[in-house]
Amino acid sequence: MSDLEEGMVTIIKVFHKYSGHKCKLKKAELKELINNEMSEFIMKIHENETLDKLVADLDQNGDLEIDFKEFITLIAMVTSACSELFIPNYHND
Amino acid sequence: MSDLEEGMVTIIKVFHKYSGHKCKLKKAELKELINNEMSEFIMKIHENETLDKLVADLDQNGDLEIDFKEFITLIAMVTSACSELFIPNYHND
Repeated sequence: MSDLEEGMVTIIKVFHKYSGHKCKLKKAELKELINNEMSEFIMKIHENETLDKLVADLDQNGDLEIDFKEFITLIAMVTSACSELFIPNYHND
Repeated sequence: MSDLEEGMVTIIKVFHKYSGHKCKLKKAELKELINNEMSEFIMKIHENETLDKLVADLDQNGDLEIDFKEFITLIAMVTSACSELFIPNYHND
């Protein structure tokens, strides 16, 4: 498996680590995942209001839980936002 | 950095490895990336027709190149499609 594929599998495994066998994240599980696993890229969530807003934005099917499709949307947004932080410095090449 | 964040950074770095300083992938660069880095998850692209269709689907802004936002959409779709392959076996816990 390539580094890219390993990275993709890591995203899947971290999701399952917090969602358990139900394959969906409850609000509290999403908060725990973000605060434990994404603290370099996202500010830790403390206020319920912040969490409620995030879940409302992600929860496409309105079941008040976050499935993998909804979760990967969050990952894509954050990765996109950070992509400019990791542009190699081509000038020295 | 957590494993999840490292995975996200890997996605950014692999994109830049193929896009170079222009931060956009030409058709040929996207094909090279997929065939080199995603061959466990996606069938290698041989036909130009397949590539043209994929680029047409991803190219939201119609500039005939794939920027990072368009690329991460591909990663999200493929990761979602593969997510069920990596569901831990909870029955033994």
